Amino acid sequence: MKDGSQRAVHEPLDPCDAFNSDCPGREVLNHLTSRWGLLILVALRSGPLRFYELRALVDGISEKMLSQNLRTLVRDGLLSREVLPSVPPSVRYALTPLGADAALPLETMLRWVRDNALTVLAAQEDHDRRADSPV
Amino acid sequence: MKDGSQRAVHEPLDPCDAFNSDCPGREVLNHLTSRWGLLILVALRSGPLRFYELRALVDGISEKMLSQNLRTLVRDGLLSREVLPSVPPSVRYALTPLGADAALPLETMLRWVRDNALTVLAAQEDHDRRADSPV
Repeated sequence: MKDGSQRAVHEPLDPCDAFNSDCPGREVLNHLTSRWGLLILVALRSGPLRFYELRALVDGISEKMLSQNLRTLVRDGLLSREVLPSVPPSVRYALTPLGADAALPLETMLRWVRDNALTVLAAQEDHDRRADSPV
Repeated sequence: MKDGSQRAVHEPLDPCDAFNSDCPGREVLNHLTSRWGLLILVALRSGPLRFYELRALVDGISEKMLSQNLRTLVRDGLLSREVLPSVPPSVRYALTPLGADAALPLETMLRWVRDNALTVLAAQEDHDRRADSPV
């Protein structure tokens, strides 16, 4: 738990460190870790997908939210957008090299959640049973 | 970009896969990737911290938001909470083994943001300059 961290607790704030509230990285972090942004980036790790393929894969997302998140991620340089010369025209999204790099730890986290969600739920139930315990 | 992913695009939804909107993991994912939850978990990778140390480290967080997030993460089994027999009494938080495991990919992501935030900002500016480009 301690040996992996290079960051001393009281070192000065780096302007690009998200611990600093003035850091432009906080906004970037929000794009990556918003529920939909994260799922979209990880979904595209398997390869490029069309709008409707993404919509089917990211269960529960509305077309509006998907459009909005795709726009943000394209603007961030994390996704590329290609209009295919099909009839009707179709749009395909892919990770840029920058986006592929960002998506890696996101997928690791998603796998962690998949593997540990039930453990967390059990911890919650256990915690709620010990109703007299201070939180 | 493709070789690291084991997930086929159209495989059936795993009940613990956050791509599935019924997945209990979606809530867990939200706790981990909420702005404050993420920063708290990563801050504690350097070792246990008292409430006010955490507040100083996670720039911009209010006492109310810190309390609320700590309560959620303790309930999830990701943090432990210890009341120290000091005068005045003080409370110390630490990652549990489960929390330490979850915090690893979060820190990788935070480092990615620190190292790439300026690249993302440059991509945004470049995108906005090409005002006539379709988004």
